[in-house]
Amino acid sequence: MIDYKKKIRTIPDYPAKGIMFRDVTTLMSDADAFAAAIEDLCKPFTNMNVTKVAGIDARGFILGGAMAVRLGAGFLPLRKPGKLPYKTLKESYQLEYGSDELHMHTDGVEPGEHVLLVDDLIATGGTAEAGVKLLRRGQADIVSAVFLVDLPDLGGARRLRQIGIDVTSLISFTGS
Amino acid sequence: MIDYKKKIRTIPDYPAKGIMFRDVTTLMSDADAFAAAIEDLCKPFTNMNVTKVAGIDARGFILGGAMAVRLGAGFLPLRKPGKLPYKTLKESYQLEYGSDELHMHTDGVEPGEHVLLVDDLIATGGTAEAGVKLLRRGQADIVSAVFLVDLPDLGGARRLRQIGIDVTSLISFTGS
Repeated sequence: MIDYKKKIRTIPDYPAKGIMFRDVTTLMSDADAFAAAIEDLCKPFTNMNVTKVAGIDARGFILGGAMAVRLGAGFLPLRKPGKLPYKTLKESYQLEYGSDELHMHTDGVEPGEHVLLVDDLIATGGTAEAGVKLLRRGQADIVSAVFLVDLPDLGGARRLRQIGIDVTSLISFTGS
Repeated sequence: MIDYKKKIRTIPDYPAKGIMFRDVTTLMSDADAFAAAIEDLCKPFTNMNVTKVAGIDARGFILGGAMAVRLGAGFLPLRKPGKLPYKTLKESYQLEYGSDELHMHTDGVEPGEHVLLVDDLIATGGTAEAGVKLLRRGQADIVSAVFLVDLPDLGGARRLRQIGIDVTSLISFTGS
């Protein structure tokens, strides 16, 4: 049994003073921890007929690609503006200062597909909510939103549950 | 036997007139093709004691995460500036207009580690060469540089071989 929390490096005051940054690269760098995390993230969904794993740019790609193979699903990238070459749908979301957009290819999902939305971490949930909106515009059936790390104090998981999304995470950091 | 080339969408005149953009998202979206591609990309290395897969930001993450799990290796992200939270080494490389940088955490590899460098596509090879330099500064032993798509007309694979790197790819597009 791997203690995933111990595999994550905390960097104080990054990217701004007072923020405890949870650095997942140290977990991913550990072959045993990374393989076990992918297995544990997939476990609830192995019999759910997941047809696509939608990973959020860019750390969600690292988990999402591996989860897609494990689940026998395709992979769908949800990306920052200007990164996808074909026609896209877009959704804006708020950042602390200003806003950003998430894009999805218009043919990224088929109606009724069983999709997992994946990112490394959920904080306020703005990006993930944009991902949910994109997948719903494509008429996907979102099985769950899956994160390696949840920061429940920031309310992202609650925010997703309020719009009817099941949320799964492996690790939770509360307080600072 | 999957015809990988047929799974890749070509987008003419993207991002600029005269460029035939090879869109790998259509291959990744196909569960069978994606799983087979990961298996075929890993096949030459299953008995090579690969300890780390270094993926290049951002499409290299999709392949690299899956390959790391398949090979029982850790995953190392090589990223654009400002994306890695811990101390980094950096290497600059030329773009058509201007230059960019690739960063690696200073503790990303241990001396002598057997590393695969992975990206979705090799064109001129500038980004991949920056990745090679970073891994060599970390004293890694680069087993191979692995790409889903090679554009041999643009000389990237030749450029890597000239600096002593083994290059592997699954698909090759020549001409325009």
